[in-house]
Amino acid sequence: MTRFRLTIEYDGRPFVGWQRQANGTGVQQVLEDAVRAFTGEQVTVFGAGRTDAGVHSLGQVAHVDIEKPMRADQVMGALNHHVKPWPVSALRVEEVDEDFHARFSCRQRAYRYRIVNRRAPLTFDRGLAWRVGRPLDTEAMRAAARHLVGRHDFTTFRHVACQARSPVKTLDLLEVERIDDEVHVLAMARSFLHHQVRSMVGCLALVGIGKWRPEDMKAALDARDRRALGLNAPPDGLYFLWAKY
Amino acid sequence: MTRFRLTIEYDGRPFVGWQRQANGTGVQQVLEDAVRAFTGEQVTVFGAGRTDAGVHSLGQVAHVDIEKPMRADQVMGALNHHVKPWPVSALRVEEVDEDFHARFSCRQRAYRYRIVNRRAPLTFDRGLAWRVGRPLDTEAMRAAARHLVGRHDFTTFRHVACQARSPVKTLDLLEVERIDDEVHVLAMARSFLHHQVRSMVGCLALVGIGKWRPEDMKAALDARDRRALGLNAPPDGLYFLWAKY
Repeated sequence: MTRFRLTIEYDGRPFVGWQRQANGTGVQQVLEDAVRAFTGEQVTVFGAGRTDAGVHSLGQVAHVDIEKPMRADQVMGALNHHVKPWPVSALRVEEVDEDFHARFSCRQRAYRYRIVNRRAPLTFDRGLAWRVGRPLDTEAMRAAARHLVGRHDFTTFRHVACQARSPVKTLDLLEVERIDDEVHVLAMARSFLHHQVRSMVGCLALVGIGKWRPEDMKAALDARDRRALGLNAPPDGLYFLWAKY
Repeated sequence: MTRFRLTIEYDGRPFVGWQRQANGTGVQQVLEDAVRAFTGEQVTVFGAGRTDAGVHSLGQVAHVDIEKPMRADQVMGALNHHVKPWPVSALRVEEVDEDFHARFSCRQRAYRYRIVNRRAPLTFDRGLAWRVGRPLDTEAMRAAARHLVGRHDFTTFRHVACQARSPVKTLDLLEVERIDDEVHVLAMARSFLHHQVRSMVGCLALVGIGKWRPEDMKAALDARDRRALGLNAPPDGLYFLWAKY
């Protein structure tokens, strides 16, 4: 048996999310079915981030155990052949020790959220970014973001169905960057609550358009109450970037 | 009557190209039908670049004459409403003088060609880039590109159906740039022959993978013969960038 670490890119639009689910196709299932197709083995693929429906990945990390003797480059080729026609691609495949666990060994995760800040409707980026028509004040967004960095009770920014034991998380970084007509929010933490990035971005956008002051972000955080949430950003703009081990 | 200059973004995947055609939908037709929907007028939309089927635009320039009294921002809003659900978006609309002609007044056009240089199949970029699996030597590509810049007879790089009166064109710039795992080719000229950018990029890729030496590009150019063309790159990676007046 060999354990392989997979770096996976996917366009989240056609999926119910990372996890295998009854109501549609999960990325996990596409990968598991692909491995079965070239090994005959019924495997479980573990991912670092269980992304929601419509959320994308540029560098999801996963692992899988394969009995059939195969080299990493063979696994990569076979995987990419058998995931077709789904928009999923193995960017890298490496042999790893058996103590490597994509989810539990992960020390830091990074997400990027893409806002396209323009009046014109999207063409290429439909489902791949959140369009905000009103001009975003990125300086105000940065000031608001600073209130969220650090160790806090993020109950306000947590989906009611979140299964994490504690709402207390340490947000290592929350950066707002403008690139032409796009505003990107970069978030890094050991782990995130369910919907945490989207909820933080939704409120940052409220600050950006001037509906909230930066201090309102602190008030929302301090409320520790989901009802204090201003806005949850759509999944369209969210990308799993990378996982550190 | 007011003449409006339109800056148009479009995802070329569903179109037979810019021009109205019998065998499918052209971007021009989508714009003309949209203008008719909010003015009742049967107009002609003139574009700076008559892009082929599957070719995209980040900044195509076009103009249209409208009788109905409207402000530029009203035209932009109405246009973007009525082009739905096509992936076409008016980024800017400005009033211009009647002597402005999107095609004939244009002094320079720029195209970008996107190659994704990686082994892994595409996900987000299917139809939006050309994937080349073998590593591209961008230094060799740059050396080859230098042979094409300037005033030349580009017969080798011209589609047989090209309607231009002369195969002689002046290529102002042909730059090869690597950005992570992408290789971009930027081309600027007053005007291009039919398939010229794709034909130049196809041959540049042959140089990049080592099948051609940079000097083979000069030999191909000097042949002034379509049969000397090494490869025509697919439309997927081609983007109309901007037009100068």
